[in-house]
Amino acid sequence: MLELHGHQLIGNTASAEGADTFQSANPKTGEALPTVFHEATESEIDRAMSLAAGAFDAFRLKSVEERARFLEACADEVEALGEQLIAMAMAETAHPEPRCLGERGRATGQARMFAALIREGSWLDARIDTAQPDRQPLPKPDVRSLMQPVGPVVVFGASNFPLAISVFGADPVSAFACGCPVVVKAHPAHPGTCELLGRAILTAAEKCGMPEGVFSMVHGRSNAVGLGLVRHPAAAAAAFTGSLRGGRALFDAASARPTPIPFYAEMGSVNPIFILPGALRERGEAIAAGYIQSLNLGVGQFCTNPGLVFGLDSEPLSVFVENTAAKAAEIAPATMLHAGIHGAYVSGVEAISAKEKLRLAGQSGTPALPARAEAACYVFETDADGLRAHPELYEEVFGPVSTVVKCPSPADFEEFAEKLDGSLTASLHGTEEDLRTHRRLVEILERKAGRLIFNGYPTGIEVCHAMHHGGPYPATCHSYFTSIGTRCIDRFVRPVCYQSWPQSMLPEELRDDNPRGILRLVDGERTRGAVGG
Amino acid sequence: MLELHGHQLIGNTASAEGADTFQSANPKTGEALPTVFHEATESEIDRAMSLAAGAFDAFRLKSVEERARFLEACADEVEALGEQLIAMAMAETAHPEPRCLGERGRATGQARMFAALIREGSWLDARIDTAQPDRQPLPKPDVRSLMQPVGPVVVFGASNFPLAISVFGADPVSAFACGCPVVVKAHPAHPGTCELLGRAILTAAEKCGMPEGVFSMVHGRSNAVGLGLVRHPAAAAAAFTGSLRGGRALFDAASARPTPIPFYAEMGSVNPIFILPGALRERGEAIAAGYIQSLNLGVGQFCTNPGLVFGLDSEPLSVFVENTAAKAAEIAPATMLHAGIHGAYVSGVEAISAKEKLRLAGQSGTPALPARAEAACYVFETDADGLRAHPELYEEVFGPVSTVVKCPSPADFEEFAEKLDGSLTASLHGTEEDLRTHRRLVEILERKAGRLIFNGYPTGIEVCHAMHHGGPYPATCHSYFTSIGTRCIDRFVRPVCYQSWPQSMLPEELRDDNPRGILRLVDGERTRGAVGG
Repeated sequence: MLELHGHQLIGNTASAEGADTFQSANPKTGEALPTVFHEATESEIDRAMSLAAGAFDAFRLKSVEERARFLEACADEVEALGEQLIAMAMAETAHPEPRCLGERGRATGQARMFAALIREGSWLDARIDTAQPDRQPLPKPDVRSLMQPVGPVVVFGASNFPLAISVFGADPVSAFACGCPVVVKAHPAHPGTCELLGRAILTAAEKCGMPEGVFSMVHGRSNAVGLGLVRHPAAAAAAFTGSLRGGRALFDAASARPTPIPFYAEMGSVNPIFILPGALRERGEAIAAGYIQSLNLGVGQFCTNPGLVFGLDSEPLSVFVENTAAKAAEIAPATMLHAGIHGAYVSGVEAISAKEKLRLAGQSGTPALPARAEAACYVFETDADGLRAHPELYEEVFGPVSTVVKCPSPADFEEFAEKLDGSLTASLHGTEEDLRTHRRLVEILERKAGRLIFNGYPTGIEVCHAMHHGGPYPATCHSYFTSIGTRCIDRFVRPVCYQSWPQSMLPEELRDDNPRGILRLVDGERTRGAVGG
Repeated sequence: MLELHGHQLIGNTASAEGADTFQSANPKTGEALPTVFHEATESEIDRAMSLAAGAFDAFRLKSVEERARFLEACADEVEALGEQLIAMAMAETAHPEPRCLGERGRATGQARMFAALIREGSWLDARIDTAQPDRQPLPKPDVRSLMQPVGPVVVFGASNFPLAISVFGADPVSAFACGCPVVVKAHPAHPGTCELLGRAILTAAEKCGMPEGVFSMVHGRSNAVGLGLVRHPAAAAAAFTGSLRGGRALFDAASARPTPIPFYAEMGSVNPIFILPGALRERGEAIAAGYIQSLNLGVGQFCTNPGLVFGLDSEPLSVFVENTAAKAAEIAPATMLHAGIHGAYVSGVEAISAKEKLRLAGQSGTPALPARAEAACYVFETDADGLRAHPELYEEVFGPVSTVVKCPSPADFEEFAEKLDGSLTASLHGTEEDLRTHRRLVEILERKAGRLIFNGYPTGIEVCHAMHHGGPYPATCHSYFTSIGTRCIDRFVRPVCYQSWPQSMLPEELRDDNPRGILRLVDGERTRGAVGG
């Protein structure tokens, strides 16, 4: 058992210079957990960032195999935390044990996936255009390029995934994979979980001979800590999962720097579901059950939680709403991540309740206990005019509340789809015939969302090559990039091009003989072969 | 011969609502050229952007072959402008005829290259992870993704490449290639050239049956026109080549929008050259000749113009400086692009001349004529303390002026390399032995520049797959992206992911049977094969 100290992890040194302290609380009881955490000072932030900058070259110049083993060692050390990590995450977030175990598996699996990715090597996008010294009117030079890491990356973990999107989530792991040092801002709602994860990473770094500064972690509840990290001259990029308000404030700071840096924020979204008439007729009841299950996954605390459902006003839709009400009644209220999120949820639901033209269609059958920060499930219904009157319904309310919009015609689907903000996902339930009939709706949603789901639900994200967890603003700050799946490594690299460079000094992935056998684009053709071989 | 009208090209309509007008001038004479151009009004900007938004779906849903033919038709129409285009570009920019012919060839070649790129298809980064319905504990869904266009793109052309980086440069052409409508802000220093190019594109669009709004162009000298475009809600991205001041102002506007959009600015850089001792001994004279030639290419008006040269203080370096002085004396002053750039150049040279510890080492042997907006070539020299005393020497002065820094030791190389801002390029002249000895310098430059050149000069960019024309800020606003080479299409796309999507409704590039035979990543393997085939 590690004993928590509540200090910043500045390279290999635990530091607690600041007088401001805080404790996390068990959201189920409201009781403070014992460890006292110290808010990071400006000088601690500066030391963490400066150590990261100092470690950058040594870290990026490690061999691929050394970095891959470091990732695997991190996964091993996180697993070695055993029951202590699971118990701490449960105490700080109210997530049940199976969820924490599942998240840990996703986090360690992700780290090993990135180890495999960098060993395989094609993610480097190595490109070679060979010289044509005799070309007229000008000779063509030898030009080669591949991805290189950008520098120290600042990571803000998510409150809702303390193990899979936090200190050891895809952000730090993909940054390590490509050779970027990482400074994590620990989430103040689960700082104990963060300390355990951070110390596991430091143990792995030491065992693997990684330079001091490859990883640091600072604590803070105040905005100043996050802003201090993002504004530090040594920061080269930042990744964030959280609220639109928090993400936008940090994006603005990152963009306003003398040297702007990319701020990759995933800020959640409303994740609309469109239920097309054929599907509603054929399996409305099953869709109602799946929808309520998705809405309540993790007490509704998913970035991909479905906030709006659209259907054609009809008898089957009325039956659907009745079915969702019946299913919602079966949902037991459950504790949210922390009191702040719970308070925002209660206010959000109250604001919806107070709107004209909105009707509460269904809710949890038992009352939520505020002292336990419990959220009940709520399903509202409205009609097209109701949504037109209340455009704030397009904004996400974080938690298990959703609104069903009864639309008079497919033209309303299209109108509302056009009005949607950028979203991580959009889901359609239908028959193939429905999809053909509503092709125009699909075309609009292709512009609005990063992931389109057919006859499924948005929650539950597959970690894989083809996944895209991103979308037009406000889902993210830059829709090219994803924060889940192998492509998320692209956020922390940039191409570096070598012109007429001697073979002996090229990165090995660009050498003629292709010693690692990676896939490369050579004179426009993808090949694992040697140049001229 | 087309008769110029000086109006905005708003879709298929020429429009001249505004009362403000301007004319371009022949920089060699200062005389105004005859066409009167109208500054775009707010309502014209809004119409251009709204037409682009309206054309987006129709354009992006055209077949790949239709878009490829459109690009080729644009190239054909630009070539059909014949001598009129070349004469106009020469009159507006003072570029000599061979340069204009070369630029036109690069522009049309680029358009045809992107036609080939989209036909080939692997740029889409199509990815397929097939379903595993029996996976435990949860089934794995079918997940597929590929790149889709982001929406209307605003393009600001460069003053220095009126044909290759302007209305028909890589920015609009790569945007068209992926399916984005384009609204160009015509460069006010060569509006006649812009009108010819813009009308050629509109002719091609009409011949190819492209929707109205796929291309529009507005004129303006005021900042308001550019800001109006970047702030318009319909804009999804913008691309810019120009000055740091102009680029940063527009980047700030793009980032501060309610919905921020990426602003891809290429803002030039100082492009350092390091001359290592072995090379200096072996072929100092040849390097001096190549350097002066590169410095004066296009009257020094290249983003990749070499502004700083570093060498070890030694007898061979003194000889090198003498040789550059001799070569500079042979350079005839020549007319710059326009009076504004000329004025800035003269001020920039005066500021350098006035600095203590800087010595004018060489200059053009004949005086520059201010009335013809002529720039003379200037080479200054200083020592390490001189550069330490004048950090503003790290900033680009646009034109044929450069400073040689005599460094006492390789440690000074490393110190100064660390102090460099982000740069498009860094060049090293050396033997392979030199490179090994100065490995640390190379490692630093890998962090500072987008392209590293060995025994060559930064000007003259190969348009190819491996090219990277970008770099850390202030070279560009986002170092992942390039503005030259095939990768520049990445700026205008984002991944869209299809989960459990029926075969019949998938984009054809994601269908199991792979009808276009493109390279895809299927379950982690790159293949042109069918899924399950």
